[in-house]
Order: sequence, then structure tokens, then C-alpha cells
Amino acid sequence: MGENDGIVSPTSVLKGISQVLLIENVWSGFLILIGLCLASMEVGITALVASCLGTATAYLIGANKAKINQGLYGFSSVLTGIACLLFLDGASKYVAAFIGAVIAVFFTVAFQSIAARFNLPALTFPFIAVTWCIILASYAMTHVHLSDAIAVTPIQQMTDNPQTVDVFGALFKDFGEVFLQDSYLCSLFILAGIAVSGWRNTIMAVAGVIISIIVVYICGLNLHSLEMGLYSYNTILTMIAMGSAFYTKIRGGYVYVIIAGIVTVLMTPVITIMLEPLGLPALTMPFVVTTWLFLTITESMKKGEY
Amino acid sequence: MGENDGIVSPTSVLKGISQVLLIENVWSGFLILIGLCLASMEVGITALVASCLGTATAYLIGANKAKINQGLYGFSSVLTGIACLLFLDGASKYVAAFIGAVIAVFFTVAFQSIAARFNLPALTFPFIAVTWCIILASYAMTHVHLSDAIAVTPIQQMTDNPQTVDVFGALFKDFGEVFLQDSYLCSLFILAGIAVSGWRNTIMAVAGVIISIIVVYICGLNLHSLEMGLYSYNTILTMIAMGSAFYTKIRGGYVYVIIAGIVTVLMTPVITIMLEPLGLPALTMPFVVTTWLFLTITESMKKGEY
Amino acid sequence: MGENDGIVSPTSVLKGISQVLLIENVWSGFLILIGLCLASMEVGITALVASCLGTATAYLIGANKAKINQGLYGFSSVLTGIACLLFLDGASKYVAAFIGAVIAVFFTVAFQSIAARFNLPALTFPFIAVTWCIILASYAMTHVHLSDAIAVTPIQQMTDNPQTVDVFGALFKDFGEVFLQDSYLCSLFILAGIAVSGWRNTIMAVAGVIISIIVVYICGLNLHSLEMGLYSYNTILTMIAMGSAFYTKIRGGYVYVIIAGIVTVLMTPVITIMLEPLGLPALTMPFVVTTWLFLTITESMKKGEY
Repeated sequence: MGENDGIVSPTSVLKGISQVLLIENVWSGFLILIGLCLASMEVGITALVASCLGTATAYLIGANKAKINQGLYGFSSVLTGIACLLFLDGASKYVAAFIGAVIAVFFTVAFQSIAARFNLPALTFPFIAVTWCIILASYAMTHVHLSDAIAVTPIQQMTDNPQTVDVFGALFKDFGEVFLQDSYLCSLFILAGIAVSGWRNTIMAVAGVIISIIVVYICGLNLHSLEMGLYSYNTILTMIAMGSAFYTKIRGGYVYVIIAGIVTVLMTPVITIMLEPLGLPALTMPFVVTTWLFLTITESMKKGEY
Repeated sequence: MGENDGIVSPTSVLKGISQVLLIENVWSGFLILIGLCLASMEVGITALVASCLGTATAYLIGANKAKINQGLYGFSSVLTGIACLLFLDGASKYVAAFIGAVIAVFFTVAFQSIAARFNLPALTFPFIAVTWCIILASYAMTHVHLSDAIAVTPIQQMTDNPQTVDVFGALFKDFGEVFLQDSYLCSLFILAGIAVSGWRNTIMAVAGVIISIIVVYICGLNLHSLEMGLYSYNTILTMIAMGSAFYTKIRGGYVYVIIAGIVTVLMTPVITIMLEPLGLPALTMPFVVTTWLFLTITESMKKGEY
Repeated sequence: MGENDGIVSPTSVLKGISQVLLIENVWSGFLILIGLCLASMEVGITALVASCLGTATAYLIGANKAKINQGLYGFSSVLTGIACLLFLDGASKYVAAFIGAVIAVFFTVAFQSIAARFNLPALTFPFIAVTWCIILASYAMTHVHLSDAIAVTPIQQMTDNPQTVDVFGALFKDFGEVFLQDSYLCSLFILAGIAVSGWRNTIMAVAGVIISIIVVYICGLNLHSLEMGLYSYNTILTMIAMGSAFYTKIRGGYVYVIIAGIVTVLMTPVITIMLEPLGLPALTMPFVVTTWLFLTITESMKKGEY
């Protein structure tokens, strides 16, 4: 089946899954999908259906074919679908996941256009915006129920700092957390998915994990959250975005990549605490805010306007 | 009296009232004004004086004559004046209403300019911004007191879902709620005001009411709020804005108008809950946010940049 | 030592201190520095070191030499350093102050670029953003502790309105509050620093104090806060910004300067209350918001686009 004949192709759908990690690679998408299925068949199938729905909706509304084939209209739908499974309860969560996957496409069109005025990519912000709206709307809907996941102990209230740290958790669970999964096996397949996409992405992802662990120790951040990968999944995304997908060629460019990584770790509690009065999860917002900030900095530097 | 001689003309003032509904029509303004007077003489007179003040201030600072004559410098002042009457208490509420009406013009100039950078209209955002500031500032002012209206039971805390629904309330009170009035008679005159402005606005307004009722039932939103028109006044505004005032000619354009209407109903609890930690009312913010979002989408589609 | 030889010159460093008040003047910077040292040697030295660090970082990343020599890369670092001293506790506050001073430079590059898209200056927003992030991040860090200053009684909860007002406090302490210092002597040196920079800045600063006192009395705002200068330090900054540093030549231009001053006083409780759910101090945000709003208005007027 050709990629330009107006039908949702398997490659666009798999790339829609890999683009969550800013990677355009069918095999990466396939490995990540296996990882998600191993974490939970429900999550894997939802990710696949959401990617199909997102891509199909983009075709239907006549979006740019090249962008669709790169999976750029799938990844926000994938994340929205998975987030609905996690944060909602009952049968209505599937309805919300699939309607959310469709609405994510419209939000992608809107936020791409707004971000473009600042020469920035929309990143995963469409997913974040849709998911926050779904969670807040659910408070008022008697037909939709929030799950317990929304009430997890927030980062700064965790005083039960563990004596010994689960090193494997700190090293590997973060990859799964990008897709909101708390699973070793899932994380390993996602890491494999990153690895097949090239050494550059792999180095950035691993560097992201190492930077988070160092910053967490130096600043005395909560080790229990570290174990669960909550401090590093955003850092992994920032490192891939700044050091690979959107790398800006400037003098000492990689210094800025590393600083962006460090700032992402620190932004994680900042965003988490800011959202607490509203009862909303941070999702990938620390990555989005930090990457927008540092892309603005590196672009200013490239143009010499600072 | 000519409309261009630098004196506040009655037509600009009445159009300032009709522009709250994105309608430029003297007779609409006149019928709405009667409706407001029937709800309460105090409200009617305040609306009239606020529209005069807004229009006069715009003349005084040398704003564009054509815009003034279209009533574009009156509607935010009208809403700000009425909101001050509702949310404040004591004699100071009149002072606040009239100072607010003047400040609304300056906010209109500022937000028109900022919104224009995104190719968007300011809509009623200047009114929202001024009113939120007045409410928050009043907390700190011993000479200004907030009324009980600010402490109304928020949407999601209403567990007293009524057994039978007041169908007339659900169908008609929403028109009054655009002007923050809870009155049948007022609503009927406002509907008449929309009707004289043309069939297109009328169809959009009625469709807005129907869409809200359907979405409220499907999603299990609170029926008591539905009765009071709280779920539909924003939807009416979005439908008129997207389907008439700012209609974008694209393939399947009316599908987007309907989707925007549905999203507005869902945005109502979202915005309401987001503002709860600050104790602020949603006002017409669900309409503003949804219309900005969907105008960005339809404009992107028109230009083919997505 | 020449100003263009790539080494941090004393003039850039002192101008970095004076630019907090939007003044480019070595002697102003010197007098303010003495004032800060008299308030507390610790604060004075931190201000000096932070200005050096900010300026040196700007050199290092290759920022515009002219801007560096005007002190434009020093003032956000100065304020961030002082804020860390005030809001944090223990030895880690010095580390935070100096890392914060460096990060403030990167935030300055980013927010200058974003603000420029709206034809606006970044003002002290980089300082505000960095300081808010540091405070929020500190909640999660076991190695960093917040001081009691973060838990001061917020403006609207102060019901202990004093019977007699400390007139000298109301008149003078505000100058120190720009640098977060509650000291007469410090304020007098800062006023002297403004005075040596020219009559225009001096008139604007004094007018700011007078406007705040009048508005506080008319609106019945808290007199205890007035005594501490909390209602006027933002107004002083707005008056200097609107009436001197960024004065827009339009018909009746000074009327807008005065209105901007009045609005700044009212914005102080607005911003303070908005930030309360997050436990964040308003810092100079009332000045930044009001100045952005009114610069947008006066620029629209100058271009005749309203």
C-alpha cells in the first residue's frame, strides 16, 4: 500500500507511536508497541487504535500528507488515549480515550499554528492540553469517573525517602514513564526502540537518565520518585529534542543541551507543585516548558539577537 | 446627528449593547436593552450608561471612528458594568461599574493589539480581564465589598441533580445569562434581539441551546446548572462567533462550528474548576478560549498550513 | 579598562545594579550598592557578586556587547541573588543565589526574544520566573530550605489596620522594597541613586510614591502594607518605565503614565491573591504586567491601530 494514497498506512501509525519520543522510525514504533503490550494488552491496543484514529482524522481533515506520514498527527493521540486509560475509570474511559484521540488532532492543528508564531514546535503540548481538559471536565460529569491514579502522592509530600535505592528502577523505569507505564519490561523495549533509531538518540536518552540521577542526588530530591522514573522521563525527552531532533548548531551547542537537561529535572517539581491546586498531573509539561525555553535561547544565539 | 462628528451617537451606544452577542444592529441593541430593564431597571440603566462611557472614552482617546460606530468599544464596558453590579455590594458597586467601563476600553485597545498578532479578535476577553481584576482587588479593599453572587455553588459541587428539569429554563434562560441575568422575560427580548439581526444568527443561537442540552445529557453534567442556562450561554456565543460573525469558508466549515459548540459545553466545567482556587467566575471565558482555538484551526485550514 | 575588551568592567557591573530601576548610570549603581550594604553587608556583597556573575555569563555566551555594557544582563541576576538570600535559608542559599544569577541570564535571553515578538521589553520578568522556579523547586529539595519570609502574612489577610500610619515608612521604605529590603537608610541611598540619574526619573519615582498613597487611602487598602512600601515599589518602577525609560510620545502621553501608575497599585493585590494558592510572592510582577499592558496601549495609539 502506498503512503500517499489517502489511506492510513501501517508505517504512519507506527511512526505515530515512535514520534512520542521525537523519533520517526517504523521499527522504533513497533518495538515500543510490543513494550506497551507487555506492560498491558489494553494499553498496547489503545495506543495502536489511538494512533490509527489520530492519523485517520488528520487524513479526513486534509492535513499535510508528508506530516501525516512522519507520524506527526499520531503521537499526541497515542498519549491522550493512554492517559485516559490511566486517569479515568469504568467503561467510559474507552469512549474518552478514542474521542480524546480525535480531539488531540484538532488541538495539534491549533497549537502547531500558535507555536509556529514563536518559531517553536508544538511538542506534546496538544496531548497535555487535551488530557488536562478531559480530567477537569470529568470532575463535573456523572457519567465519567476519575481513577485513583489522579490522587497519587505528589512529589514533595513524599517524606518516606527509601534507605536503599532500586538502581534498576532509577535506570530503566523512566523509559516506560514516557508512556505513563511503570514496567521494567516495557522500558527495555522502549529503550530498544530508541536504540534502533540511531546512536545519537540513544546517547541523548542515556545521558538524560544519568543527568537526572546526578541532579536528584545533589539537590536532595525524593529518591522514591527517582526509582519510579518520575524525574527522568521528561529529561530523556528534553535531551532527545535539544540534542537530536531540534539540535541547533551553535558554538558550544552541547553545553546548552546538558543545561536544558539539568533544568528539566528541576522543572519537574516546579510544574508538579504549580498544578497541585488544580489536582492535575504534570505529564510531559516539564519537558515542553524547558524545551520551548532553550530552543528560544539557542535560536536567539544562532541569529545573534541577544 | 451624524455618526462621524465626534459626539457619542445613540446608534453606537445601542450597537455597543448588541455587540455583546457579536451583532451590529441598532434594533437588536434596543430590544436587549428593554430586556435588561425588565430584568432590573438598575441593570438596564447601568448597561446604557456603561455603553455611553465606553464609547465616549474611545472617542476621547481618538480610537478608530468606524470601530466606535460599530459598537466595538461599547460591549466590554456594558458587560463590565453589569458584572460589577452583580458581584459587588454597597454604593461602591456603581463607582466600580463606571470606572470599570472606562478601564475596559483601555484593556480593549491592549488585547486587540495582542490578539491581532495571532490573527484573532479580542472577543469579550477585555471584559473578563477587567472583571477578574476588580473582583480580586476587591478582596483587599475595605471600601469595596463582594456580593454573595461570588460565592454561588460551583458547577461540580452541585449534587442535588433535580428529578425533573425545567425545560423552559434550559431553553430560554441562557440568553439572559450572556448578560448575567437569570430571567425569562429578559431572555425572550434578547432572543428577539438576535432574531431581528437575521436568520443566520438566530439559527446559530438556537443550535447552541440544542447542542448544550444534548451534550449535558450525554455527559451527565449537572441539570440544575442546565436549567439556569449556565451551560449554554457560552455555547450560544461560540455558535454565533464561529458560524456567523467570524465564519471561515472552508470545506465542511459547519462541521467545525458544531464541534466548536460541543467543545464549548465541555470547556465550561474545565474553566470553572480551573478558576476555583482563585474564587473567580468563568464569565464568558469558555466561549473565548474555544473560539480562539477553533478560529486558529479554521484559519490554518484555510491557508493549508497544517 | 576599556568596555569592549571582553572583560567584565566595573561600569557594566554597577550599571547592572542601577538597571533594576531602569536606569543606566554608574553613580546610581554605586549609591544603590552602598544603600544595600548599609541594609546588610551580606545583601550588598551578594548584589555585587550577582551582577558580576550575570555580566560575566553574558560575555561568556557571546551576548551583545552594547547591551552588556548598559547593564542589561546584570539586573535580573542582582534581583535573583537578593531574592534567594531572603527566601531561602541555610548555607544552600548562597549556592542558589549564584546559580540563580547565572540562570537568570539564560532566562533573560529567552524572555527578551519572546517579549520582542510583542514589541515589548522583558523588564524584570526573567528575575520573577527564575525566583518563582527556585522557590517552587525548593519545596521538593531536602538540601534547600525556605526561610520564614515566604510565609509572611499576605496583603488581604491583614486585618490589623494600624490606627496611625508611619508616614516616613509610607514615603521612603518603598525604594528599598524594589530590592526587597525593609530599611530607611537603604531607601534613602536608592532615592539618591535615582536623583543623580536626572530630574525625570526622580519626578517619576516621587510621583509613584504619591499616587500609591492616594490610591491606598481612596480604595481603603491595607495601611500596614503601605507603611512597608509594599504598595508603592511596583508603582515607582511603572512610573519610571512608562514616564521615562520607555516613554511613548503620544497626545496626552503623561495621562497614560499616571493611569498606569494607578493601575499598578490596584494590580498589587490582584497579583498577590492570584499567587496565593501557590505560596509565591508577587515580587515585581504588578509592575511587569501593568507596564506590558500600557506599553501595548501607547504603542497601538502611536501607530493609530485601535
